[in-house]
Amino acid sequence: MECTFVSVSPLSDFPIQNLPFGVYSVNGESARVGVAIGDHVLDLPALSELGLFAQIDGLENSHSVFSKPYLNDFMALGRPVWRAVRKQLQEFLSNDSHPVRQQADKSLVCVELSKVAMHLPAKIGDYTDFYASREHATNVGVMFRGKDNALMPNWTHLPVGYHGRASSVVVSGTPLHRPNGQRRPDASKPPVFGPSVRLDYELEMAFFVGPGNALGEPMSLEQAEDCIFGVVLMNDWSARDIQAWEYVPLGPFLGKNFGTTVSPWVVTMDALEPFRVAQPPQDPQPLPYLAGSSATPGGYDIGLEVHIKPHEDTEYHLLTKSNLKYMYWALRQQLTHHAISGCNMRPGDLCGTGTISGPTEDSFGSMLELSWSGQKDVVLGASGVTRKFIDDNDVIRITGHCQGNGFRIGFGECVGQILPAKHI
Amino acid sequence: MECTFVSVSPLSDFPIQNLPFGVYSVNGESARVGVAIGDHVLDLPALSELGLFAQIDGLENSHSVFSKPYLNDFMALGRPVWRAVRKQLQEFLSNDSHPVRQQADKSLVCVELSKVAMHLPAKIGDYTDFYASREHATNVGVMFRGKDNALMPNWTHLPVGYHGRASSVVVSGTPLHRPNGQRRPDASKPPVFGPSVRLDYELEMAFFVGPGNALGEPMSLEQAEDCIFGVVLMNDWSARDIQAWEYVPLGPFLGKNFGTTVSPWVVTMDALEPFRVAQPPQDPQPLPYLAGSSATPGGYDIGLEVHIKPHEDTEYHLLTKSNLKYMYWALRQQLTHHAISGCNMRPGDLCGTGTISGPTEDSFGSMLELSWSGQKDVVLGASGVTRKFIDDNDVIRITGHCQGNGFRIGFGECVGQILPAKHI
Repeated sequence: MECTFVSVSPLSDFPIQNLPFGVYSVNGESARVGVAIGDHVLDLPALSELGLFAQIDGLENSHSVFSKPYLNDFMALGRPVWRAVRKQLQEFLSNDSHPVRQQADKSLVCVELSKVAMHLPAKIGDYTDFYASREHATNVGVMFRGKDNALMPNWTHLPVGYHGRASSVVVSGTPLHRPNGQRRPDASKPPVFGPSVRLDYELEMAFFVGPGNALGEPMSLEQAEDCIFGVVLMNDWSARDIQAWEYVPLGPFLGKNFGTTVSPWVVTMDALEPFRVAQPPQDPQPLPYLAGSSATPGGYDIGLEVHIKPHEDTEYHLLTKSNLKYMYWALRQQLTHHAISGCNMRPGDLCGTGTISGPTEDSFGSMLELSWSGQKDVVLGASGVTRKFIDDNDVIRITGHCQGNGFRIGFGECVGQILPAKHI
Repeated sequence: MECTFVSVSPLSDFPIQNLPFGVYSVNGESARVGVAIGDHVLDLPALSELGLFAQIDGLENSHSVFSKPYLNDFMALGRPVWRAVRKQLQEFLSNDSHPVRQQADKSLVCVELSKVAMHLPAKIGDYTDFYASREHATNVGVMFRGKDNALMPNWTHLPVGYHGRASSVVVSGTPLHRPNGQRRPDASKPPVFGPSVRLDYELEMAFFVGPGNALGEPMSLEQAEDCIFGVVLMNDWSARDIQAWEYVPLGPFLGKNFGTTVSPWVVTMDALEPFRVAQPPQDPQPLPYLAGSSATPGGYDIGLEVHIKPHEDTEYHLLTKSNLKYMYWALRQQLTHHAISGCNMRPGDLCGTGTISGPTEDSFGSMLELSWSGQKDVVLGASGVTRKFIDDNDVIRITGHCQGNGFRIGFGECVGQILPAKHI
């Protein structure tokens, strides 16, 4: 299949096989739903008016659904509708004689990506973060609790997760201020107050929930799989000194809630389908509700990179090269576990995977791991610049893609700059 | 000051000194903002139409603000507007010759409480729970970690808190299903899956945030005080067996997220003002950002009771008699700490205090404490019925009030029944 509507480079993140959904605006006009194709954005309200989605069962109000400044209404409609929209878009883009192509004024249905502002893809009702990479959990455990207590006894039995802060999830490109807080650098003295001095990134991906479940009604692993709308890149910024002092016994709080950055384009599970791979072997065998009976593998082969642009420099330097396939607990296991208590998941809820570290040092997904808790310098290329943690005005960029045969399913960018702390 | 518009019993929770805000509906009509007075609800959209709020700066769209099925828009307007509305309502209710009283058709501006359905007071963007009672934290600490490690070193330096689940916060009267989950009753064997067998209540209060702060901009203790709209009763239902197995290292998750119940009437801080009392002495002295310079005391004298109606019985039996004044960390300290990282607080955000236990056994705010982790039976009055935790079909009811001279500032009820677990 080839896009004939606009030209798409083989290195583009957004070929016709991808078609990620996002929320965009042009020149300050009202934000609405778009789909990325090559260097362009398709305007879904405009394509709705041309009748492209008129035959789709369950999408009778497509213009209203796509005119919203968030994807929640679309996410709520479920996989058959998402698939039908994807199919219509692929036919429109690839078939020169498609009836809607004949009427479509290109300047009204599509705009250059370079001219749009991107917004958060959804109104996030609740944001949850998991801790699903065995390598990351082990690394952090060794540093915080020693080698013998690195992995807690529960870790191999359930996807450990915690509730995060939804209000401070921001879209790529939004700068964030370094947080203030309490830390206790010397355990023999009282804590001190001030800006964090151990500010970190966390390389994560995150999925948006689709239809969800009613309060009190758990879902099976198979149901959970159909409830995942799509995936974005995520940087779960972390203030390690604040976190270390506050997190016992109720978990991370101010060490995380000053900001979380997500990429704006949500890549659907249908676009990722060809890139399924086996997840790491699970030993012990998970309890039946987490094992399911699905014949499809639970992992995805998505190559990920983190770069830093230190404030002293104009170039990005590679920090991390990892892959979602290292993740011990699959996305569908995370969602199933989340709802097993009867917790109601709603369209637009966001679930992060936790830091995605791989088995080798160059695949560690945080400065905490790369500098081994600040014990060694991380050297940034040939520039001579080093870091243990993130300085003011540094920029962190996450990118990622699946490599197909002659195309890639890319995620765009998840970028954020850290500005100095503000005072009361 | 006396209400002459409707008669109010001296034992009513809702005299003219209270005037709590809530969201109600009648006969399935659209929900809107009301204020409780005695056994009635005042309809604020109707009073807006009669011009009662026409002179209030900042409330030019009072009809629109009060016609919403949530209080968020009103909460966003800030304390001067809240106070002005309170003043107008008190004048309307107490002054027979008030110009709006002359026009007001009683049947259009007010309805009997017994005829209304109550809804959640706000769209809750984020829900946070603190852990601010020293007695509760000590009791739980002794049970989970032994006497020597009961209070973590951070506890007296900061109000420990964690992010909770907003989607499953429900209004009083909503039944909840017992959660399923993993627990590990025998530490020498693998965990098992099924309904929780140690289901508990937690006696809490919670405050709704008003105007809030922009991301990256902390607020002072004095600013925080003006950002608290009002207070409700809360039951932070907890599955102790699920919680105990899952909570290390990232905190409570499925042990809490199956449901949290709040009372429907939000009692404003202005109504509570006469009931301020000194909070417990804080030693060590908190860091300056938590100490502030306010001359007003940080505590509130609010008597609280928890009753249980076991499924074998038709009567309620007293479980707990406690008071908000026992709380070590004041509400304003909780909010200041929450935002000190730059975390943005939004109108309608909900912050729970954590379990409010007092110094004596009869003031313990959870079954976990009353049965000392299931080691002893809690005897329910003369009925002969006993409990260690909550059984299916039991009902838990929280009530509370401040005792004034000839009147009480009450909170109504926070009631919930536990239904059997549902299976996948």
